[in-house]
Amino acid sequence: MSVPANKAVVLLSGGLDSATTLAIARDQGYECFALSVDYGQRHRAELEAAARVAQALGAAAHRTLRIDLGDLGGSALTDESIAVPEAPQLGIPVTYVPARNTVMLSFALGWAEVIAAPTIFIGVNAVDYSGYPDCRPAFVEAFERVANLATKAAVEGTLKFRIATPLMDLTKAQIIQRGTALGVDYALTVSCYQADESGRACRKCDACRLRSEGFRAAGLPDPTRYFR
Amino acid sequence: MSVPANKAVVLLSGGLDSATTLAIARDQGYECFALSVDYGQRHRAELEAAARVAQALGAAAHRTLRIDLGDLGGSALTDESIAVPEAPQLGIPVTYVPARNTVMLSFALGWAEVIAAPTIFIGVNAVDYSGYPDCRPAFVEAFERVANLATKAAVEGTLKFRIATPLMDLTKAQIIQRGTALGVDYALTVSCYQADESGRACRKCDACRLRSEGFRAAGLPDPTRYFR
Repeated sequence: MSVPANKAVVLLSGGLDSATTLAIARDQGYECFALSVDYGQRHRAELEAAARVAQALGAAAHRTLRIDLGDLGGSALTDESIAVPEAPQLGIPVTYVPARNTVMLSFALGWAEVIAAPTIFIGVNAVDYSGYPDCRPAFVEAFERVANLATKAAVEGTLKFRIATPLMDLTKAQIIQRGTALGVDYALTVSCYQADESGRACRKCDACRLRSEGFRAAGLPDPTRYFR
Repeated sequence: MSVPANKAVVLLSGGLDSATTLAIARDQGYECFALSVDYGQRHRAELEAAARVAQALGAAAHRTLRIDLGDLGGSALTDESIAVPEAPQLGIPVTYVPARNTVMLSFALGWAEVIAAPTIFIGVNAVDYSGYPDCRPAFVEAFERVANLATKAAVEGTLKFRIATPLMDLTKAQIIQRGTALGVDYALTVSCYQADESGRACRKCDACRLRSEGFRAAGLPDPTRYFR
């Protein structure tokens, strides 16, 4: 008799990190429920990439939630009056979206409770760590505590939630090597903050530079399509 | 020279509790930024009530965010295949929305960071405590910890977030007495889980019964409009 696979909700942006996270979750034997959040970001090509990645990596289901986070302003990714920077920034980048990972983990938690999935995967990692406060281990641990206090399932003792962050201690090059070994086709993914409609990348924003340097450091060919 | 008022984000559903919370926040001297979340719930009349309440109680601004939480299923309030119960329920009610307060506090946190508001008001209270896990003090404290780890403002030391729950230890009758003393017009509010389009209440759902009993226990006339 076969044991049913453990269910996991996997946050999937359509970028390189979350695609690798999905591949790792599947490799660990999870039945993966991929969740994308359209929070009004400019790079909508990422969301189409997410659908392709979910299918290619055998997700059991893929949902996209739309929210109007852009109404609240405060980030170059959602506020068209703030330009996306094309040179390296000091400190926390202006592409930071207020409370983004808190919002995304909240949605993931809601779905995880409905489908009785004890594990939530999120592809935060050490490279983002330096810039984004909601990519740090202390934040993830604090949210895990919230999850186990917030939900009917946890309170009734039927589920104990865990937030899995398999990329946390990996460099971009290590992430790419891991994903490549697991068969991720990075040509399907879009990381660029200002990708064009067909998902081609700008080559100059922070996300493009980190990604390009990652392939170089990994010693692997960069399959990214650029528009310039 | 006058000191500028402290800003606060106040979660405002349009129901009795959140209207009272807004009145208390204003009475405490806060400049109030009211936030409503349209998570696909059936009782949309509540959202129109929220706009009326925000104006009547002098909120500096009012925003409504739309999200597709209903896509994830799991609650009588968002899933039309589950009937709203009209008799008292044991345990956690089926009108529970997965991760609702976590999602709403996440949005409030995002807006609070953008407008530099250190305080977030949410009208959770002891009556809900017994049924909804995300109305308990332990949950609120855990979320406050997340807020102070998740955000650029907290990490950079420019803001320290506090989640204010002025209704936590009040009965429904005490809430109504407090709000009445502060001038809240409860005729503007809608609590019913299945209010009609003009905001008239059903008289029979959990929310209607708690509200009606609250006015009786407070010794105050119930201004609620019922459709039956």
